[in-house]
Amino acid sequence: MSNTTNRRVALKARPTGIPQAEHFDLTTAPAPELAKDEILVSNSYLSVDPAMRGWLSDTKGYGSRIEIGDVMRAFAVGTVIRSRNSAFSPGDHVMGLFGWQELAAVHPDQVLLRINEQSFPLSLHLGVLGVNGIAAYFGLREICAPKVGETVMVSTAAGAVGSCVGQIAKILGCNVIGIAGGPEKHQLCIDEFGFDAAIDYKSESDLGAAIGRLCPDGIDVYFDNTSGAISDAVLPHLAVGARVAVCGTASIESWNPWPIGPRCERHLLVKRAMMRGFIALDYADRYDEAVSQLSQWIREGKLRYREEILEGLEQAPAAISRLYSGKNHGKLLIRLPAAKG
Amino acid sequence: MSNTTNRRVALKARPTGIPQAEHFDLTTAPAPELAKDEILVSNSYLSVDPAMRGWLSDTKGYGSRIEIGDVMRAFAVGTVIRSRNSAFSPGDHVMGLFGWQELAAVHPDQVLLRINEQSFPLSLHLGVLGVNGIAAYFGLREICAPKVGETVMVSTAAGAVGSCVGQIAKILGCNVIGIAGGPEKHQLCIDEFGFDAAIDYKSESDLGAAIGRLCPDGIDVYFDNTSGAISDAVLPHLAVGARVAVCGTASIESWNPWPIGPRCERHLLVKRAMMRGFIALDYADRYDEAVSQLSQWIREGKLRYREEILEGLEQAPAAISRLYSGKNHGKLLIRLPAAKG
Repeated sequence: MSNTTNRRVALKARPTGIPQAEHFDLTTAPAPELAKDEILVSNSYLSVDPAMRGWLSDTKGYGSRIEIGDVMRAFAVGTVIRSRNSAFSPGDHVMGLFGWQELAAVHPDQVLLRINEQSFPLSLHLGVLGVNGIAAYFGLREICAPKVGETVMVSTAAGAVGSCVGQIAKILGCNVIGIAGGPEKHQLCIDEFGFDAAIDYKSESDLGAAIGRLCPDGIDVYFDNTSGAISDAVLPHLAVGARVAVCGTASIESWNPWPIGPRCERHLLVKRAMMRGFIALDYADRYDEAVSQLSQWIREGKLRYREEILEGLEQAPAAISRLYSGKNHGKLLIRLPAAKG
Repeated sequence: MSNTTNRRVALKARPTGIPQAEHFDLTTAPAPELAKDEILVSNSYLSVDPAMRGWLSDTKGYGSRIEIGDVMRAFAVGTVIRSRNSAFSPGDHVMGLFGWQELAAVHPDQVLLRINEQSFPLSLHLGVLGVNGIAAYFGLREICAPKVGETVMVSTAAGAVGSCVGQIAKILGCNVIGIAGGPEKHQLCIDEFGFDAAIDYKSESDLGAAIGRLCPDGIDVYFDNTSGAISDAVLPHLAVGARVAVCGTASIESWNPWPIGPRCERHLLVKRAMMRGFIALDYADRYDEAVSQLSQWIREGKLRYREEILEGLEQAPAAISRLYSGKNHGKLLIRLPAAKG
């Protein structure tokens, strides 16, 4: 990597369904200039997240829409290589929405996390110590407030967020049941992540019945990463007073036309249940608290994680669709050649 | 009324949709015997509530199912005429689930409210000072926690619960918009209940557009009494951080087969919004607090109510369907001839 050019992945065409490689262009631009107070970050790892699909969609979502020609918005971790800000020095590690590119001119307000902890691989700050772990931590604790002995169900249970949710729920003393697709992910939930039970939704002809068998007393907490048919099978099994955190809608291919499903109001009413959407960015001012606790659990061996690392910026355009293929295992990342640390 | 017989309305056939007169039987039984600690209540007013439809349904709801031959479950207010309990004396006024009948043998645990306040008509303790007002009070304050200046939307806005919700929201300093059906109810919302605006959903070809025009900055609180097409038009207009209280599903004719509608998860996620179901009975231990505050607001002229009173037990069987005809105005009640107080 040269410091005079910047290779980037830009949006070429707006996808209607799952974003594919053809929706992006690999382009080269001059290295960005630094405005007053900015820092130049050399990205080491780029994140691939389900949220990117929403950012690309034409439907109004959170965050501004990404326009054709824009660098793809993405979480990244990297190293400060130049600084016009006295609070940052070359060599500092930072995480934020630095985009799918090699270099980013970043205002300090855009830094989501200063990485002080040096004992973990930098890549973890995009996954279990990054937005995935942070979403799991706040979504479970703040939205769902699970109590000892309660039954917690999580979808995409072997994924970057789901695996973290289930393990934190175990640490908090809950009975944890994961829903994942395929025998391999089912086993991961049990063997690697230590859940009490798991359901391979692909092998169940009647998912609702399988949930009923495992949760005869109902589900106190449902951490919803999917929406769709999985959630439709879960909601009738909510216990009285249940809490549902809506973290993602991975099973919905497109919101245009808007998908329909069984109405949820009666479940909420009869069970006096609560459903609440959240995004990890809402807790940006409390990231340090989450990272500190998650780091401790990793050191104690209570919190495990999986990563799948693709090599080189060229892998980025096709990576989002990989998330939806059911093939990836663990947090999906792109490593850039500059990554040394 | 004789004290040796008890006229009652019992379930004759289970309705699949809206309960009609033909689903009930008017029967006569001997006056109930009092077990130890029980009191004999002579009902003065019987309540007619949308919740009764759920109680009658085959679908599992809250509360046990009413079986064929059972007296119809209903809120009622009445006077103690005999007591085997030292805590109650003849002449005391009480409210509870005493059923559609003249006389009820009641254990004190079943008394939801002892009516100490003597300055209001007894009927109010089934409406604005009863479960309707109590549902509005706790649903709005506890579930929705509206703040001064926020926009509050309420459906069935001219109804017993809705009119109370909107007026309490006005008292709390909110901008209140009601949704009701027909020009007469629209005017009631404005002239009688003092809402800032109202929408006659029957006259709007595009309800969502009408909501958008009235709430350009979004809806902070939605008190949902309907579910269905009205809620589907409201949810896309939620503001970031919105709270939705699910109090009833009046617009759904039947839950068998389970109705479908636009999925709500994405609205909750993008707006970081919360939806929560509740029933007034969950707050039974705090009824006195609500009744005391509601009474004060009535005395101060800040809280108005409407009643529609049908005369005689014979009116009860057809009364539930009247709730869904759009014809009734205000709290629907049955007055029994015994009612003197």
